[in-house]
Amino acid sequence: MENLDVIRITPESRHKMGDQVVDERPLTVYLNDKEIVTLLCSPMDERQLAVGFLVSEGFLGDKGELKDIILDRDKGLVWVQTKGRKTPRKESVFNRRPPNKELSFKRLIGSGCGKAAMFYNAIDKLKRKTIVSKKRFLREDLFSAMDKFQRSSELFKSTGGVHSAALSDGKDLLVIKEDIGRHNAVDKVFGQCLLDDVSTKDKILLSSGRLSSEIVLKVQKREVPIAVSRSAPTDQAVKLARDLNMTLVGFARGKRMNVYSNDWRIV
Amino acid sequence: MENLDVIRITPESRHKMGDQVVDERPLTVYLNDKEIVTLLCSPMDERQLAVGFLVSEGFLGDKGELKDIILDRDKGLVWVQTKGRKTPRKESVFNRRPPNKELSFKRLIGSGCGKAAMFYNAIDKLKRKTIVSKKRFLREDLFSAMDKFQRSSELFKSTGGVHSAALSDGKDLLVIKEDIGRHNAVDKVFGQCLLDDVSTKDKILLSSGRLSSEIVLKVQKREVPIAVSRSAPTDQAVKLARDLNMTLVGFARGKRMNVYSNDWRIV
Repeated sequence: MENLDVIRITPESRHKMGDQVVDERPLTVYLNDKEIVTLLCSPMDERQLAVGFLVSEGFLGDKGELKDIILDRDKGLVWVQTKGRKTPRKESVFNRRPPNKELSFKRLIGSGCGKAAMFYNAIDKLKRKTIVSKKRFLREDLFSAMDKFQRSSELFKSTGGVHSAALSDGKDLLVIKEDIGRHNAVDKVFGQCLLDDVSTKDKILLSSGRLSSEIVLKVQKREVPIAVSRSAPTDQAVKLARDLNMTLVGFARGKRMNVYSNDWRIV
Repeated sequence: MENLDVIRITPESRHKMGDQVVDERPLTVYLNDKEIVTLLCSPMDERQLAVGFLVSEGFLGDKGELKDIILDRDKGLVWVQTKGRKTPRKESVFNRRPPNKELSFKRLIGSGCGKAAMFYNAIDKLKRKTIVSKKRFLREDLFSAMDKFQRSSELFKSTGGVHSAALSDGKDLLVIKEDIGRHNAVDKVFGQCLLDDVSTKDKILLSSGRLSSEIVLKVQKREVPIAVSRSAPTDQAVKLARDLNMTLVGFARGKRMNVYSNDWRIV
């Protein structure tokens, strides 16, 4: 956990306070020297995560097959060695949501350098694409947009298990989409915008889900200056948003919100 | 949405009722005839999801590049054609959480057959591994385990953005883990069990997160007879759990729970 400065905004007040933000780190799992996957995770119990992941994916059956587990926590790397030196089937590591290229590419080409260095190399690359929008939004408009967003997604709440995402211009919800996956809901919004020629610049992205580094990168790619969620951000999401000149708002519930970066856009 | 029969259990009552459960379907995205990814998603706005996914991953820049989008909703396939016929870089589809092999393998080798057929082929294969445990649990013990689980994970709730998972024998929590990802939390529990020689048979898996088909498959792999969550299940999770002889419990909050399959294990 990291203690970060946050601006707490309500209809009547605006003040700086400290907030505990959860850590998010990449962990790359190797099985017998073959790279299997990079997971974004909470950096604790990494050995258990690596072993449990390999069990869940069918690479590992029981403890007797294990020879060694070596963790380099600083670099975010874990090597699992088995006695039989099984080689994973190719198809098992091919499909499903791919990584974000910006964050994973460095890791794929060189696993010798430190995790932090990789992260910050990736961020350096992204800095060239910082958000340029100078647009400011009234806090009342953000509260109102979030209120509309939550009421609109009530429709689907009969089932309980759905995430929502929306694009707002500060007055109306221009696009709203729902999905069982928080990534999918955001992708559907941006897909709709592209198909309907709705500009995403100078707009607000609203989400019901956690704000992770991957969501921040999606939002940055569409040059959206503000991302607002009723859920929590991770530490990496906050750091990225600060570097990318993006305004990141978490815990937007009722008439309150926590602004983790670039609060000047909210007046 | 699907209306399924569910057994609502409280300390005083047990009755059958109907419950709306959210749909979960695989969607395989092709870019210029190259298979890119299979997403588990809510089966609506599939075109927007495909396009938004390709935009977020950097395969697609703007609408002008698009030539055609063909959706076969029944088969869960979408083909996106661009004018330039870009070929995705290999590294971009390689890393990150791979798919569950049981569900994805069929899709990888043959995309001509119907989605439902693939799903049920996969399920047929899994049926050979149905849960054999005959153990029954008292409802009071489940309420109590869930209560301990929620109180234990309070520790980390200062940050808001964390999932928890635990293994219980009906009396105590044997293992409890937290992570920003719901999959990671479950993998950490099973990894710990494997490393510490804790048998997962005849136990209860508790989770804070949504019960999707992938979570059910993880639980089945460790032969855990009961999965309990404070969140919702998806329709595919319920169907799989019924076929696998697993007891699936959702919305376990306070002194209530909804049992979606094999309620005979709860007495």
